[in-house]
Amino acid sequence: MEGHARLLITCTDRPGIVAAVSGFLTQYRGNITALDQHTTDPEQGCFFMRVAFRSPDVEPPGNWLRAEFRREVAEPFEMDWHLSFAAEHKRMAILVSRPDHALLELLWRWSRGELPAELAGVISNHPDHREAVEAFGLPYRHIPVEQGAQEEAEAAMLDQLGEWGAELVVLARYMRILSPGFVAQYPSRIINIHHSFLPAFAGSDPYRQAFERGVKLIGATAHYATSELDAGPVIEQDVIRVSHRDGVADLRERGREVERSVLARAVRWHLEDRVAVWGNRTVVFGT
Amino acid sequence: MEGHARLLITCTDRPGIVAAVSGFLTQYRGNITALDQHTTDPEQGCFFMRVAFRSPDVEPPGNWLRAEFRREVAEPFEMDWHLSFAAEHKRMAILVSRPDHALLELLWRWSRGELPAELAGVISNHPDHREAVEAFGLPYRHIPVEQGAQEEAEAAMLDQLGEWGAELVVLARYMRILSPGFVAQYPSRIINIHHSFLPAFAGSDPYRQAFERGVKLIGATAHYATSELDAGPVIEQDVIRVSHRDGVADLRERGREVERSVLARAVRWHLEDRVAVWGNRTVVFGT
Amino acid sequence: MEGHARLLITCTDRPGIVAAVSGFLTQYRGNITALDQHTTDPEQGCFFMRVAFRSPDVEPPGNWLRAEFRREVAEPFEMDWHLSFAAEHKRMAILVSRPDHALLELLWRWSRGELPAELAGVISNHPDHREAVEAFGLPYRHIPVEQGAQEEAEAAMLDQLGEWGAELVVLARYMRILSPGFVAQYPSRIINIHHSFLPAFAGSDPYRQAFERGVKLIGATAHYATSELDAGPVIEQDVIRVSHRDGVADLRERGREVERSVLARAVRWHLEDRVAVWGNRTVVFGT
Amino acid sequence: MEGHARLLITCTDRPGIVAAVSGFLTQYRGNITALDQHTTDPEQGCFFMRVAFRSPDVEPPGNWLRAEFRREVAEPFEMDWHLSFAAEHKRMAILVSRPDHALLELLWRWSRGELPAELAGVISNHPDHREAVEAFGLPYRHIPVEQGAQEEAEAAMLDQLGEWGAELVVLARYMRILSPGFVAQYPSRIINIHHSFLPAFAGSDPYRQAFERGVKLIGATAHYATSELDAGPVIEQDVIRVSHRDGVADLRERGREVERSVLARAVRWHLEDRVAVWGNRTVVFGT
Repeated sequence: MEGHARLLITCTDRPGIVAAVSGFLTQYRGNITALDQHTTDPEQGCFFMRVAFRSPDVEPPGNWLRAEFRREVAEPFEMDWHLSFAAEHKRMAILVSRPDHALLELLWRWSRGELPAELAGVISNHPDHREAVEAFGLPYRHIPVEQGAQEEAEAAMLDQLGEWGAELVVLARYMRILSPGFVAQYPSRIINIHHSFLPAFAGSDPYRQAFERGVKLIGATAHYATSELDAGPVIEQDVIRVSHRDGVADLRERGREVERSVLARAVRWHLEDRVAVWGNRTVVFGT
Repeated sequence: MEGHARLLITCTDRPGIVAAVSGFLTQYRGNITALDQHTTDPEQGCFFMRVAFRSPDVEPPGNWLRAEFRREVAEPFEMDWHLSFAAEHKRMAILVSRPDHALLELLWRWSRGELPAELAGVISNHPDHREAVEAFGLPYRHIPVEQGAQEEAEAAMLDQLGEWGAELVVLARYMRILSPGFVAQYPSRIINIHHSFLPAFAGSDPYRQAFERGVKLIGATAHYATSELDAGPVIEQDVIRVSHRDGVADLRERGREVERSVLARAVRWHLEDRVAVWGNRTVVFGT
Repeated sequence: MEGHARLLITCTDRPGIVAAVSGFLTQYRGNITALDQHTTDPEQGCFFMRVAFRSPDVEPPGNWLRAEFRREVAEPFEMDWHLSFAAEHKRMAILVSRPDHALLELLWRWSRGELPAELAGVISNHPDHREAVEAFGLPYRHIPVEQGAQEEAEAAMLDQLGEWGAELVVLARYMRILSPGFVAQYPSRIINIHHSFLPAFAGSDPYRQAFERGVKLIGATAHYATSELDAGPVIEQDVIRVSHRDGVADLRERGREVERSVLARAVRWHLEDRVAVWGNRTVVFGT
Repeated sequence: MEGHARLLITCTDRPGIVAAVSGFLTQYRGNITALDQHTTDPEQGCFFMRVAFRSPDVEPPGNWLRAEFRREVAEPFEMDWHLSFAAEHKRMAILVSRPDHALLELLWRWSRGELPAELAGVISNHPDHREAVEAFGLPYRHIPVEQGAQEEAEAAMLDQLGEWGAELVVLARYMRILSPGFVAQYPSRIINIHHSFLPAFAGSDPYRQAFERGVKLIGATAHYATSELDAGPVIEQDVIRVSHRDGVADLRERGREVERSVLARAVRWHLEDRVAVWGNRTVVFGT
């Protein structure tokens, strides 16, 4: 265990930030167990830090600690910050269409304790996965998207996510494009898996595109969804080697493995507060 | 050693090709030491094969064998084919601009016997690498490209390549775009290294593009040059992991390593007749 | 689809083998769709070949073809050989102890059509996985191994495997050492996954061994079981990067991913007749 | 540039260390530009930290700063610590036997500014590399090791290293075993490259061992030399894929590439004070 609690901080760089944060924690008998810090180059001057700590004085929900930290440290340094407790898992929902490999990978890892989330449920535009999902003791909500009725479907999805109190939405091969309005409800809190090494082969049927270009490696990219398709901040990517022997169907099959592992890593890192967004890039701490 | 000689064959698929080729070789006491064959899917029906063999009857230049093979096998099956002897290395020339890492990697490996080429010489639009190249006992030809005089420079380069009898031209970070007319002189015989994982980041300054997109892996691509920039058939690609800590200069530095190894592999495979071109893709045998 | 049928051949090298095999297939209108051949160096003189072919004349069970091939080709060249039809899947059984990740990976891939096997059933020394296995419509046989009663348990397992007609036995994290007598019943037909990069960390608790040695990569090895523990011919290996941040529990968790993919690849290659054993090594064709 | 200076700290864990160090730096207008911290699990309770910072008040040699830090922070917390300035490169010497690939890789990278070292010179038990080394403007010292005269040779080497003021000794394929007495002169300051994935294939001719075991990946390991052969703390490892086609000579050739890159990374990390030793393991920060 890394610690009882962690802080993820972004602010404009200036001297004294580490001293202020660590000094604050020392006041409350906090023992820092992992700290990772990054400053972008001098012109940009962005400061990022993740601190995991333990303290006998600190228990969830820790609202007094949040108030003290805000007053003593966060406001003086104008920080974007987030305090979370290891014992309080984020509420997560999964959206999925027909392909089930990414969904099952997440459910599996979650059931083994590898994903520190409170899994609220699964929404799909297909009825297919109900049995598999309910076998994990999770609610499955089928919200079909009728021709021309995207808006109603998205409203129903947002209602369901709101009802579940979702803090993270994972698109585990959800094959429909979400509207900018939907995406804006969960800024840097929707993780999508795209089945290519972005920015190569954005858009539809990337394995066919890869086959036609004759690449020697195929990949997958987990990124935060933004209003622009397949263009959000990348959290994690990986590739595997393919050859002339692989047709489109082979690429699809081999690609599933890398999609599964890339998405699982990205989701885990988000759940552990390891990912900070910096423009269209990410800082990923201590993995 | 794989064998004395090898055949690289492309033709329309039909039954009996392997039997015809192997039967032919058996007639001349050929012992096949490595054979790799690939057929594209039925609709496309392309047949590719590489055969390495030894025979006490076969010595370079082997023109009688070529004539027999043409008459007995290649013409009946309408093959594109190429017979080469392991003892006869291809003549290779290198074109390079200012960055020297890819050039030096090739010279180094060649001097150790890792690249089975007869290295004819190096051409550059810069004078910088003369000493390094001449230390390997190789001619260095400086052909500057004056503003608006690309045509004259290319003519001089083609003259030099012709004089050297170059069979393979390697662009080891040659930073100028060659005209379609130049490229057409060496179809599937110019290998370029592009410093990105194509098709991502084609064109100029790919490391900056990669930095700006915030990718988590950077790569390099060795491909045959065609009249379209960075769009020719890919021979080899590879990637390495980068992080938020890496600025553009770091990507450039880390990328050199993958550029060097990807180019060296692609050149070697070409020299060993392992690469067949199939439309805008390649078949790479037995690596 | 690669073809209707395939031959996997091992014999002493001499001229004419490819010609004999391909000539034979041509007689029966066989069209070779993939051929991969390897000869070890001259002193050793071992010949290995895998041929996939299609023919309108050939249907399973094809006993007449086997008889013809034996007489015309296999006996004259003293071959070890195996003819199989793509439509006839090998019968496979899985042995597993408590960890279920390797088991579930195989069941999943099999249910998606990624493993061309007829899955006969699962045997375990623990009762835990009955529900998961039966959900795939497969029989689950619990054979506990009592203290001092290894022999009886193995006899029961062999009976069950015999009843199922198992042609391949996969040890998907079966944590007990099988006796030489058991292993001898399935020579080169028991695939084990060992959770280290063999020969490093053979034996028990390899992740702890890896942690204590402070390695920077951990791996997994799929190999054929032999009478010597963790020493049989390696089919496939892979590794993933770890760091000082990873304790033994982290290594165990991260290792699962590589165990799963390495085992799945090895099993698939065996099922597709891609693996030939050569002393304590393997030849793996066309993957 | 990461910063003007950096601290690498090891001590027993307790609350307040980060606050003490960062508070101290703030006093002297230090701005932390990169901080990475690791605490081993509670029972072991070891604290490691690397801090890079800039300050207008701090210039090399900075002895007053060292004195202040010792008194105010290091002594109270009983730290092992090391302060270095980015502008002051460590003095490095290379020992090499006949194979030159690791040597040349280091010289090359150094000459491009990729290795922040002051390269003092090269010592070899062979005369072969004089020309190559002197071409880089570096002294080459040939110290042959006569049969039975290892002791004298080592004394001469230690003299030379002492004269050069070497702070880091790199064994770039130095093929003789150094005595414990020699190694003890440079604790955690001799980096060796071993041409296998340790602990597999320690000792001599690891590529032959790898061939004979039939592994599917080969590797290289950079580690600190200790009195026990090939058993010191691992700094970096990597692997590449090989196949049944590769004989011992092929493994040797392919392995060179991974040896070169693994050693270069390890040397660089040491030069940048990223490596802390923890028993027989290492902590490698922020790479």
